[in-house]
Amino acid sequence: MNQDYIQSHPWSIIEDGFDKERIKSSESLFSLGNGVMGQRANFEESYSGPTFQGSYIGGVYYPDKTRVGWWKNGYPEYFAKVINAPNWIGIDVSIDGEPLDLATCTHIKNFKRELNMKEGWYRRNFVATTPNNIEIEVVATRFLSLSHNEVGAIQFEITPMNTDAEIVFKPYIDAGITNEDSNWDDKFWNTTNIGSNKNRAFIESLTMKTHFNVCTFMQAHLVYGNTIKETPDSLNKEELAIGFGFSQKTNKGEKVSLIKYGGYTVDRNHDANKLMEAANSVLDEVSSLGFDRLLEEQKKAWAAIWEMSDITIEGDIKAQQGIRFNIFQLNQTYTGTDSRLNIGPKGFTGEKYGGSTYWDTEAYCLPFYMATKNQEVARKLLKYRYNHLDKAMENAEKLGFTKGAALYPMVTMNGEECHNEWEITFEEIHRNGAIAYAIYNYTRYTEDYSYIPEMGLEVLIGIARFWQQRVNWSTHRNKYVMLGVTGPNEYENNVHNNWYTNYIAKWCLEYTLEQLNYVQQEYPNDYKRVLEKTQLGNDETGLWKKVAAHMYLPYSEEHGVYLQQDGFLDKDLVPAAKLNKKERPINQHWSWDRILRSPYIKQADTLQGFYFFEDHFTEKELEKHFDFYEPFTVHESSLSPCVHAIQAAKLGRMEQAYTFYLRTSRLDLDDYNKEVEEGLHITSMAGTWMSIVEGFGGMRIRDGKLCFSPKIPEQWEMYSFKINFRDRVLRVIVTQKGAEFDIDKGEALKIMVNNKAVTISA
Amino acid sequence: MNQDYIQSHPWSIIEDGFDKERIKSSESLFSLGNGVMGQRANFEESYSGPTFQGSYIGGVYYPDKTRVGWWKNGYPEYFAKVINAPNWIGIDVSIDGEPLDLATCTHIKNFKRELNMKEGWYRRNFVATTPNNIEIEVVATRFLSLSHNEVGAIQFEITPMNTDAEIVFKPYIDAGITNEDSNWDDKFWNTTNIGSNKNRAFIESLTMKTHFNVCTFMQAHLVYGNTIKETPDSLNKEELAIGFGFSQKTNKGEKVSLIKYGGYTVDRNHDANKLMEAANSVLDEVSSLGFDRLLEEQKKAWAAIWEMSDITIEGDIKAQQGIRFNIFQLNQTYTGTDSRLNIGPKGFTGEKYGGSTYWDTEAYCLPFYMATKNQEVARKLLKYRYNHLDKAMENAEKLGFTKGAALYPMVTMNGEECHNEWEITFEEIHRNGAIAYAIYNYTRYTEDYSYIPEMGLEVLIGIARFWQQRVNWSTHRNKYVMLGVTGPNEYENNVHNNWYTNYIAKWCLEYTLEQLNYVQQEYPNDYKRVLEKTQLGNDETGLWKKVAAHMYLPYSEEHGVYLQQDGFLDKDLVPAAKLNKKERPINQHWSWDRILRSPYIKQADTLQGFYFFEDHFTEKELEKHFDFYEPFTVHESSLSPCVHAIQAAKLGRMEQAYTFYLRTSRLDLDDYNKEVEEGLHITSMAGTWMSIVEGFGGMRIRDGKLCFSPKIPEQWEMYSFKINFRDRVLRVIVTQKGAEFDIDKGEALKIMVNNKAVTISA
Repeated sequence: MNQDYIQSHPWSIIEDGFDKERIKSSESLFSLGNGVMGQRANFEESYSGPTFQGSYIGGVYYPDKTRVGWWKNGYPEYFAKVINAPNWIGIDVSIDGEPLDLATCTHIKNFKRELNMKEGWYRRNFVATTPNNIEIEVVATRFLSLSHNEVGAIQFEITPMNTDAEIVFKPYIDAGITNEDSNWDDKFWNTTNIGSNKNRAFIESLTMKTHFNVCTFMQAHLVYGNTIKETPDSLNKEELAIGFGFSQKTNKGEKVSLIKYGGYTVDRNHDANKLMEAANSVLDEVSSLGFDRLLEEQKKAWAAIWEMSDITIEGDIKAQQGIRFNIFQLNQTYTGTDSRLNIGPKGFTGEKYGGSTYWDTEAYCLPFYMATKNQEVARKLLKYRYNHLDKAMENAEKLGFTKGAALYPMVTMNGEECHNEWEITFEEIHRNGAIAYAIYNYTRYTEDYSYIPEMGLEVLIGIARFWQQRVNWSTHRNKYVMLGVTGPNEYENNVHNNWYTNYIAKWCLEYTLEQLNYVQQEYPNDYKRVLEKTQLGNDETGLWKKVAAHMYLPYSEEHGVYLQQDGFLDKDLVPAAKLNKKERPINQHWSWDRILRSPYIKQADTLQGFYFFEDHFTEKELEKHFDFYEPFTVHESSLSPCVHAIQAAKLGRMEQAYTFYLRTSRLDLDDYNKEVEEGLHITSMAGTWMSIVEGFGGMRIRDGKLCFSPKIPEQWEMYSFKINFRDRVLRVIVTQKGAEFDIDKGEALKIMVNNKAVTISA
Repeated sequence: MNQDYIQSHPWSIIEDGFDKERIKSSESLFSLGNGVMGQRANFEESYSGPTFQGSYIGGVYYPDKTRVGWWKNGYPEYFAKVINAPNWIGIDVSIDGEPLDLATCTHIKNFKRELNMKEGWYRRNFVATTPNNIEIEVVATRFLSLSHNEVGAIQFEITPMNTDAEIVFKPYIDAGITNEDSNWDDKFWNTTNIGSNKNRAFIESLTMKTHFNVCTFMQAHLVYGNTIKETPDSLNKEELAIGFGFSQKTNKGEKVSLIKYGGYTVDRNHDANKLMEAANSVLDEVSSLGFDRLLEEQKKAWAAIWEMSDITIEGDIKAQQGIRFNIFQLNQTYTGTDSRLNIGPKGFTGEKYGGSTYWDTEAYCLPFYMATKNQEVARKLLKYRYNHLDKAMENAEKLGFTKGAALYPMVTMNGEECHNEWEITFEEIHRNGAIAYAIYNYTRYTEDYSYIPEMGLEVLIGIARFWQQRVNWSTHRNKYVMLGVTGPNEYENNVHNNWYTNYIAKWCLEYTLEQLNYVQQEYPNDYKRVLEKTQLGNDETGLWKKVAAHMYLPYSEEHGVYLQQDGFLDKDLVPAAKLNKKERPINQHWSWDRILRSPYIKQADTLQGFYFFEDHFTEKELEKHFDFYEPFTVHESSLSPCVHAIQAAKLGRMEQAYTFYLRTSRLDLDDYNKEVEEGLHITSMAGTWMSIVEGFGGMRIRDGKLCFSPKIPEQWEMYSFKINFRDRVLRVIVTQKGAEFDIDKGEALKIMVNNKAVTISA
C-alpha cells in the first residue's frame, strides 16, 4: 500500500520517529523553495546513511552531452539540465570530539520533522545519544526567505542533556558537488574564487559551458546564553569548500545555537563582477534584521500568499492538508516575478526530468497562477514561450520542417530541446497545441486580448505552420492524417491519428485563422508587422483551412466514441480493475512492449481533449467517452487524476471525483507512485487546485462569463477558495447546503451559477 | 558518390596510393580472420593519424553495463559485447633513431595494400622518407593461419634506399587496449601475468566479469642477409605490455626483416592454467615450420576452401572481385568447426553491433554454409540456438511470457539479450520465426530429419508458445492480431499486424504442429521425452491451431497486395526514386520521426516473407507485391538488395537483378552506405552468395528435389558455382547459351531444370 507516515494536520506536514528507509522520501517532502532557489530537506550535519543531496538555483543549468544507446537523427547533442548547486546549508557538528551523525548515534528519540506551510519554515528536532554516550537535544529550524530571496536562514540549537560537553559547529559552504543524473560524470562547476571575511565566506563558481556566475555565501555566529560569538575560532579552507569552527563548552541542560545565513547571488540579477559585493549586501541586510525578525517577515510573506490562494476544507483533515501542500509547493516553485523562470515538474525538489519546462505549465499550471496571482504573472508564463519562438523554429527546422514552422520542445530550460527519446522528443508533438491553447485560455479568462497582436499571433502562426506540414493527405481515407505521434498517454508510442493530437491540431489551425482575421480588423498595424515578419501568404492560410476542414478523426460507430488512435479496438480490452493488484503500477511490473500493446492509459488522452474543448461536446458525449476510457486509465502519470476528477464531478459522480481528488492531492504525501524520494510532482499540484475549483466548484468561462456549478463531496462540511478575476477577488464558499459568492475586492460582477445569471455585489 | 579507390582484380583487393582519409576504411576492407581470431588492417608500426584499432578473439566478450537515456522494464542490465583484444601485431620501428610513422614521413610513394584472397594473406608496401631524410622501402606481409588457428605471422621487411642506417625493430604485445564503444569506460581486461623467455613473450589476461583467460603471445627474430638474430638486444617490460628490441646496422640497398609470430591461446580450448604452455607449444610448431612454409600451408588451406566455395564470373571483373570478397570474408569469420561460435554482422572487422549473433545467421548465412561447407557445419549453427533455448525462455519470462515460451534475443553472444532499444529488443520478434524457419530450411535441404526429434522440436515448441501468447483476440476484427511489433523493415516501429511477422508466426504454429505429429509417429521415444520435458498439453496445441487458423493478415483489396502493416496505405506514397538524391540515404539525413511516417522500407519486409514462403504464392502474386513494395524500398540495410535480386531474377528482370547484385556484392568495397570504416557487413555477404545461386541460378528445393532455373545477366559471359548437396558436390556452369550441371563427387542425382526432370550422372 501507499506510505502513511505523514501525520494529518491542517497546516503542517509532520513526520514522527526516525526511520532510515524514509530519509530520501522525507528529503523530498520537506523541501523548501522561494521561487529562485530550493533545497531538499537534507540534514545540516553530516549523515553517512543513504541520502539524496540537492540544492538548486532557478535558471542555472548545464548543457549535458546527450547519452543514448542508439543515436537517432534529430536528437539534441547537448541539453540543459538542472544542476545540483553548491551546498550552503552544511554545518558539521561534534560533541566532545565525536561527529554528530544520525546514522551512528546509538539511540534516537523524539525525532520529528515539521514543515509549517502557513509560515514557510521547516524544523527538525530529536534527542540522540552519540557514540561517546552524550545525549543531546537538537532543534534545527530553517527557511528560504521570500522577502530576501537570495538567502536562507538556519538556527541550529543543541542542548547536552546528561553531561557538560564541548560543542563544535563547523558551518561551511561547498562547491564540490555532483549530479546524480550526470551523463558523463562531467564536472558542472568551476570554482573561480574562494574567500572569507570575519564570519562570512564566499565561493565564486562558474558553470561549465553555460558560464553562469554564482556566488555561494554564508555568515554564521554562535549564541550561548547571553554570549554571541561572531568571530570563528578557526577557518578551514579547501580547494572547493570553506568553513568556520565555533567551539563552545556547554553546560548540561543549557542550549547553544548556531545561526547561519547562506545562499546565492547570481549574474542574472547582478553584475558578474560584483556578486560578492551583492552577497555582502544581502548579508548586511539579513544580519541586521536577525533570525527572528527575518522569520517574522517570512510569516508575513506567506500570510499574503495564503490570503489569496488558500483553499479551506472543513470536515476532512487529509483533504485539507493535501490541498495546502499542493498550493504551498506551487508557491515555493514559482512566484511569478521573473518571465525567465518557469515551473519544472519537480520544482526545486529533485533532478529528474533534467530540464525545466514541460507542456504541464500551459496545460495545468497557467489556470492556477492566473487565478491565485494575477494577469501579469500569467502573461509572464506566456511570454516565456514567445521568447523561445526562435528556438522552436530552429527545433522544427532540425526535424525537416520549413518556412518558420515552430515545434516547441518537450522539455526545456532555454528554449532548446532537452529530451532524447524519439517517441517523445519527435512524436509527442501535441505539446505544441497546449501552447496555443494557453493563449486562448489566457485571453478567455482575462479578456486581455493585447497579448495576441503583440506576441501571441507569431507563436500561433509558427504552430499552425507546423501542423499543416506535419499531416499528410491519405488518398486511401480521403482525409488528412497524422502519422507517428505519441499522445498525452505515453503508454502508446508512434501511433497514427491520435484523436487528441489531430483534434488540437485542427483547433490550432482554426483558432489561428480566427485570430488573424481579428487582428487584421482590430490591430491593423500589428497585423502588418506580423505578416511582414512571418512572410505569411494566402496560399498557406488556404492550406490551413483545407487541413482543418478535412482532418481525420478516428471514430467508432459501434461504441459511439472517438478512438484514442487508429487500431485501439484491436486491443485486449480488459478493464484495469481486473488486473492483478500485484502488477500495479504496471510501469513498475510490465515490460514496455506489454504496456504498449495493452489498452491501459497512463493519463487522460481523449479525455484531455474533452477537458480542453468541453464546450464542443454534449454532456452525454462526455459521459460516453468517460465511461469508455476511464476503466482503462491507470493514472500512472501525476497529471491524470485531476482531469478525471473534474469530469467525474461534472457528471455528478461525486464519490469517484472525491477519490480522484484524494489521489491527486496526496500523490506525494502518500507516495502513490512509489517514487517520491526522487522529488515532488510540482506541476500536477496545479491539477489538484483545478480539481477543486473547476471540478467541485464547476468554475468555467463561457461566452466571456464566469460560471459555477458548485458541488461538494459528502465527506466535506465546507470548502472555500478565492480567485482573482478581471480586477476582482471573488470568494466562493460551498457547504452541503449551497454556495455563497462574495466580492472581496473590486466591482460587482455578473456570473452564472448553475446556468442562472447572478450578480455578486461588491 | 560511392568510394572507388579499390582496384579491380579477380583475386585481390588492392589499394594504390596513400591517403590518410582512407585509413579507417582500408583497415576494415583489408581485415584478416581465421574463424577464431581477427585483426583489422592496422599498421604494425606506430601511426599517429586517425585509426581504429581492432584485434578480436572469437567467443571472448564482456558483459557491459547497459547505458540508455531512459530505462524501460525488460532491458538487460548487462549485455555481452565483442571486446578489443590485446594487440599482438605491434612492431615499433626506428630508423637511425627516428620512429617510423607514416603520419610524419615527409614523402610517401608506391604505397600499396593487397589482400590476396586466393592465398589468404595481406601485404603492404611503400617507400617513405623519414623526417631524418632516410628513404626506406617497406614490405609488410601478414596472415592469420588457418592450419594453426591460434597464430598469425608477420614478415616486416625494410630496405634503406639512400644511405646506410641503423634499423631497430621493437616487436611487442600490449594488453593496455580499450573499446571504442565501451559504455562506462570500463576496463575490460585484467592482466594477471607477464613474462618472456628468450625471444618469446607472454601476457596472461582475464576478462573482467566473464573471466575468460587469454594468453597473448609472440615470438620474433631478425633476418639480415644470412644472419638470423634470435636473441633480442633488449627487453622492455611495462605493466600491460612487453616488447623486444632488435637492432641492425643495415647497408644502403640491403634488406632487413623481422619475422613475428603472435596470437592467443584461450581457455575455451586449453586448461586455464596451461595457456602459456599451449602458447609455447604452438610457437614451437610454427617456428619450426618457419614463415615461408606456414604461408605455404595457408595457401593450401585457402585453396581447399576455394575449391568448394568459389564462384567464378567471366566478363565482369568487378562482379568477380565482389563475390570473392564476400566468400572470402564469410570464411574468415566462421569456419564451422565450433558450435560455440557464430557469425557476427561485422565478423572480426569492427566493434559495432556489440554482440555476435543476429537472425542474419538463420535467415541469410545458413544456406551459404550448408551448401559450401556441409551438413555438419549447418547443424552446428542450429545447435547453437538449441544450446541457448533456456536463455531464450528466461528472456521471454522476463517480458511476462509463461510456461516455457521462448523469445530468442535480437543480438547475443551467450544466449542473453545484448540489445536495448525497446522497439527492437521487445518488438522485433520476427527473429523467432527465422530460427524456426532455419530448422525447416535445414531439413528441406539436407533431408536430415534427426535434428528435429533430438533438439529442434523443443526449440519449435518454445517458439510456438511465444507466438500463441503474443497475439490477442480482437473482438473488433474477429481475428487474432499481433500488436506492437517491428518487422524486418526497421524504418517502422511499434506497428500493428506486420504481415511478415503475423505470417511467419502462423507458419511456425502450423509447422510445429506438423512436426509434433511426425515425431509422434516416427520417433515415439523422442516424442515422449520432449512432451514430458516441455509439459505440452492438448489445450496448448488446440490453441495453436486456433491462432494459426484465425490469424489476421492485413490485405488491400484495392491494390491486391498484403499490407506491410495496418495503416500502410495512409502514408504519403511517393516512390523513393522521386526523393531528392541529396537526402539519400535517408537515415543520414532525415529525423527519425520523418523516416517512421514515410513509406520507405529499409530492407525487404513483406518481400522477405515472399522469399521465405515463395511456394505459398503464385509468380503473379510475387510480381504484384514486388511492384508494389520495390519502389518504396531504399535498401539502407545491407540485408535488403540480395532478396530483391533473387526476386527480380525470378521475375526475369535481369537488369534490375544485376544492379541489386552489384550493390550487395560491392556494398563494402564501394562503401554504398558510407560507413565501411566501422567494419564490414559480413552477414549480408551470404546474401550476395544467395543472389547468384538462388537468384541467377534459380536454385530451390521443391518437393524434396533440387531445382534450378538458370539465368545470366547480359554483362556476364559465364558464371559457375558448386554446392554440397546430400553427399554430392554439384557443379553448375551457366553461360549465355545455357547451363551445364556436373557431379564432381557422389552419386547421380535427379534434379529439375526449368521445371523439367534431368538426371545428372556421376
